[in-house]
Amino acid sequence: MKNVVFYHAGCSVCVDAEQKMLDLLDKKAVNLEVVHFGEAKERIAEAEKAGVKSVPALCVDDAVLHLNFGASMDDVKQSLGVDA
Amino acid sequence: MKNVVFYHAGCSVCVDAEQKMLDLLDKKAVNLEVVHFGEAKERIAEAEKAGVKSVPALCVDDAVLHLNFGASMDDVKQSLGVDA
Repeated sequence: MKNVVFYHAGCSVCVDAEQKMLDLLDKKAVNLEVVHFGEAKERIAEAEKAGVKSVPALCVDDAVLHLNFGASMDDVKQSLGVDA
Repeated sequence: MKNVVFYHAGCSVCVDAEQKMLDLLDKKAVNLEVVHFGEAKERIAEAEKAGVKSVPALCVDDAVLHLNFGASMDDVKQSLGVDA
């Protein structure tokens, strides 16, 4: 199983990418977790450490795939009132 | 079946995204085509019409997911000697 984390911030670009992308994944081969930063601010540091620069992003094991561009991590932190 | 086209130009960002991404797809639910512009210049116009702005990109039915950023379509066309 591959561990995949979809990080997003709830914006329309994120939600759209989530729907398009997650439908395509092989649920039998992928251990998927969806993280909404608005509901889990404490995961922001982990995402940045993994290399997430913008949302929505898909982390596949140790690689990051940025999908389209919803917002930068700086914008996410600012809108959620999280210190850099 | 969903029709999915992965457009790329053979650069390292593209190849890496291809490997990470395509492994995750549900082959039973996805009708996948991989298009390398270097080997199929005639598909560039089709991709641009579908909304591809940069490669690598994944077209899912009528939606485009840009994955990370390898090169803009202008750079692709320039490097392949294709007129805009």
